[in-house]
Amino acid sequence: MPAEQTIEVALRWADVDANRHVNNVEFFRLLEEARARWFPTTGDGASLLTSGVVVARQGLDYSMPLTYRHEPVLVGLRVSRVGTSSFTLRCRIYDAVVDSDDRVYAAGTVVMVVVEEGPGRSRPFTVPERRWLESLVG
Amino acid sequence: MPAEQTIEVALRWADVDANRHVNNVEFFRLLEEARARWFPTTGDGASLLTSGVVVARQGLDYSMPLTYRHEPVLVGLRVSRVGTSSFTLRCRIYDAVVDSDDRVYAAGTVVMVVVEEGPGRSRPFTVPERRWLESLVG
Amino acid sequence: MPAEQTIEVALRWADVDANRHVNNVEFFRLLEEARARWFPTTGDGASLLTSGVVVARQGLDYSMPLTYRHEPVLVGLRVSRVGTSSFTLRCRIYDAVVDSDDRVYAAGTVVMVVVEEGPGRSRPFTVPERRWLESLVG
Amino acid sequence: MPAEQTIEVALRWADVDANRHVNNVEFFRLLEEARARWFPTTGDGASLLTSGVVVARQGLDYSMPLTYRHEPVLVGLRVSRVGTSSFTLRCRIYDAVVDSDDRVYAAGTVVMVVVEEGPGRSRPFTVPERRWLESLVG
Repeated sequence: MPAEQTIEVALRWADVDANRHVNNVEFFRLLEEARARWFPTTGDGASLLTSGVVVARQGLDYSMPLTYRHEPVLVGLRVSRVGTSSFTLRCRIYDAVVDSDDRVYAAGTVVMVVVEEGPGRSRPFTVPERRWLESLVG
Repeated sequence: MPAEQTIEVALRWADVDANRHVNNVEFFRLLEEARARWFPTTGDGASLLTSGVVVARQGLDYSMPLTYRHEPVLVGLRVSRVGTSSFTLRCRIYDAVVDSDDRVYAAGTVVMVVVEEGPGRSRPFTVPERRWLESLVG
Repeated sequence: MPAEQTIEVALRWADVDANRHVNNVEFFRLLEEARARWFPTTGDGASLLTSGVVVARQGLDYSMPLTYRHEPVLVGLRVSRVGTSSFTLRCRIYDAVVDSDDRVYAAGTVVMVVVEEGPGRSRPFTVPERRWLESLVG
Repeated sequence: MPAEQTIEVALRWADVDANRHVNNVEFFRLLEEARARWFPTTGDGASLLTSGVVVARQGLDYSMPLTYRHEPVLVGLRVSRVGTSSFTLRCRIYDAVVDSDDRVYAAGTVVMVVVEEGPGRSRPFTVPERRWLESLVG
């Protein structure tokens, strides 16, 4: 089973709201940025980005406030389901902690659908796309 | 049973991303803005905002792309559950259509927790807060 | 001499930063939104938006903090110069005050350039575009 | 004469607007983030951040479109003036190019004012603050 893939995403001071914590909406922005750095630009999965993938559903559970710091936060992504034209990502925003449980700020799922270039209608995954996605199912 | 409460929220050209649709993350921003205009500043529920309410969990299903226009979008909010220190909002982002079904762009739920000023720990609702929330359950 | 044109722009709670004032960067966002509602979609100036206009230079002086409220802020726009392919907008973000000076939160200028669709190179204004811009010079 | 100080700032896919370039407003966001990473948290200048610094005036000239990529952009900051309670930063957003001129996407200035904690009125720099700022004048 492939391990979760982890992407570092830098925080911005502007992610913080009047309550001085990273705003709940910005957590979805961190997920978006992690995906932008996770999708491959060459190889089997590369046509996903060039064709287009859109978010069909997403949700997060928040467990701990996150404050601004210069160090990036980690975003863990794990493909948990591959359908005909959609797949599900299990996501968490966290700090790795040595010799202990990770500190998880939020966790949830994103369902993404591949669409045709132009009209934006969903289409089935190609064989290489499916191969790439299934290689990541964990 | 109280009807859903509806708040108009103006779109911004900046809500649109490189795909020329309102970005999926911005839908949560529209919900946030609707809540900022929905919470009362006087009366039974007013202490919620001054004490502080935080998002514990939220999710959306996207059903249709939304494009930028000058006219505001409607955000419908309905309290569906009142717990000890949290409540659930059923939300939808839509356009009202006369003599037909509304056009719904996205729908979902937000769970909010009331916190103490300062430390940010959850606390039970006061009697007036609960009275206000329960008057809205639909 | 045409009067300044005024566009109402709604604030968002998210415009406020950790200092609990509308963030200085968001003032440029308010200008952008005002322009998106100011450019005509029909008539002499309509080809500006469909062809494309980009910001070549912009600056603001901040004079007073702006706090979040449900009421929109006013953005005043006045064309102060029309060149071959660029024009200058004098801008201010303010509240109108009856029988007194307006309350101005920030004021400055934006230089915009018209570009060709596609390549994004600047091009001269067409005669109707120039007619529209010069009708606004104040 | 101290060299310009350079801070790496990561782009986000969300910085890009419908024109597929980093949005002109986001350039001010990149400057803000660079400053958040540039102000010292210990030593002579550390009281600036804890007391508070606000933007009094800022402007940028845009020279070249910037597209999203995974690599950070560079933000160069140079203190060009130290007044009683304000200072001026010369800023540029650029890519370093070996054996050639840097590629500059935008350049401009930001005037910042130090304010008292709480009321937000400007105050004179302390002696250590001034020492830190003047050590950077270039």
